Amino acid sequence: MAEVPAAKRQKASTPDDSLPATYKLIYWPGLPGRGEHVRLAFEEAGVAYEDTAMHEGAVQQVLAQISTDNLATGSAPNVPPLAPPVLQHGDLTISQTSNILMYLAPQLNLASSGSDPHAIYRLNALALTALDGLSNEVHDCHHPICTALYFADQRTEAIRCSKQYVKERLPKFLGYFERVLMAQAARDAANKWLYGAELTYADLVLFQCLNGTSHQFPRAVKQLRDGGAHERLFAHYDAVQQRPNIAAYLASERRQAYGEGIYRYYKELDVVPDDDGEEEEKNN
Amino acid sequence: MAEVPAAKRQKASTPDDSLPATYKLIYWPGLPGRGEHVRLAFEEAGVAYEDTAMHEGAVQQVLAQISTDNLATGSAPNVPPLAPPVLQHGDLTISQTSNILMYLAPQLNLASSGSDPHAIYRLNALALTALDGLSNEVHDCHHPICTALYFADQRTEAIRCSKQYVKERLPKFLGYFERVLMAQAARDAANKWLYGAELTYADLVLFQCLNGTSHQFPRAVKQLRDGGAHERLFAHYDAVQQRPNIAAYLASERRQAYGEGIYRYYKELDVVPDDDGEEEEKNN
Repeated sequence: MAEVPAAKRQKASTPDDSLPATYKLIYWPGLPGRGEHVRLAFEEAGVAYEDTAMHEGAVQQVLAQISTDNLATGSAPNVPPLAPPVLQHGDLTISQTSNILMYLAPQLNLASSGSDPHAIYRLNALALTALDGLSNEVHDCHHPICTALYFADQRTEAIRCSKQYVKERLPKFLGYFERVLMAQAARDAANKWLYGAELTYADLVLFQCLNGTSHQFPRAVKQLRDGGAHERLFAHYDAVQQRPNIAAYLASERRQAYGEGIYRYYKELDVVPDDDGEEEEKNN
Repeated sequence: MAEVPAAKRQKASTPDDSLPATYKLIYWPGLPGRGEHVRLAFEEAGVAYEDTAMHEGAVQQVLAQISTDNLATGSAPNVPPLAPPVLQHGDLTISQTSNILMYLAPQLNLASSGSDPHAIYRLNALALTALDGLSNEVHDCHHPICTALYFADQRTEAIRCSKQYVKERLPKFLGYFERVLMAQAARDAANKWLYGAELTYADLVLFQCLNGTSHQFPRAVKQLRDGGAHERLFAHYDAVQQRPNIAAYLASERRQAYGEGIYRYYKELDVVPDDDGEEEEKNN
């Protein structure tokens, strides 16, 4: 599959012609970023989508959306986005990662198959929590002062922030998702996903968050995996990674390298709690 | 109204007996925090709600929810929350501020009265964007290194972060919402809210975010207000503040002081861009 050009592969993966319009993801090219959560949902579902990142002119398309001149003047009452990812579907244009996923998931059969109308709010809470602790906070570890400054200009603060993150925050968030998986198994021993008996988009979000966090903090994540206190969580991670459509996607050229995105590898930030001698534990 | 005890006032404000069960907000006492967004929705709607913060034992109720022992073992398939706010309604328990608001807003007539099923995704994007830039980032200005450390242990970094925030981020986010309001007015000159002709919960979220940001950065917000480049935004702020139910709430004793919450006043962080000589403008 890695030999098939991305554009062709996208067209080849169209199993559902009943959908009303093409899904179009508008996102920066050259890094997975927050757009990756949207891609993984389409890929797991095997539903075709257009992805600006796979074509020329992606940057211009993103800039057109977030331009201060964009007033979203179309027939549909859309609101202009502040930042990508942006999803276009028919005349709907929406932004914000978790929001796009909430919209898509029921259409992609990734929102729990039961008839419980509240399921989507439980899934959204799980997705938001993963994005808070294992995406936004991880990004802020390399840019703790401001995203408008270079890493080199906040390197000292980034090291301090990363040491705190792997000591205080990473175990907290991994422990939380271990608890969610424990709670699901307590309902039904066969449950291995975050919500109910079937994989949902919340599982994909957690996988991508942990994958990216592992890229930035490989030593800390390995230490937690080896520590054995998060067995359900890492089994969950492996199970998502082994889903046929996900495995095929990850092996394809559509999966981009992390590079200079949300998740970045800097050797000086690749710390573990034991490295950290000078900070005392304190409560805020 | 300020003389009426909080508990009585809560019961007195029950206009809608058709609702299926009491709404219960579980949140820390003693500061508005993220729970305030949920309160403002109930207050604007004039719908009764129980608020742990108004009673003894609030801390214990929050701790019971976020305890590592809580597996959310009830008849409904809820998932345990990582952090408050938590909303209970009947047998549903959900967390995450924007998620709670998405659930509540249609029931409180705060989600746009039209029949467009996509309105909620546009409102959710607006709410998430306000919370990103005018709540989470503002909080991180006083705790840029880690929430697990005291402010005093990251004071230097907090000053640097705040200077960058008021220079780069605050104008970006205020400019974004000015643009959203401009886009609405371009559709219909009578539109003064963020989405359509009527106030929605997105307006309340933006108001609370800007109110809190003004508490933390009074000089910077005043400078932007006086600057005149965000006239629609500040008119919007004033219009929300003058809504009868909101004004009554803000004057009541139910409205708590900011204190040591998301938004904190530290004199050394009360900066304006002109204070900042040493940092060059750079792109990340």
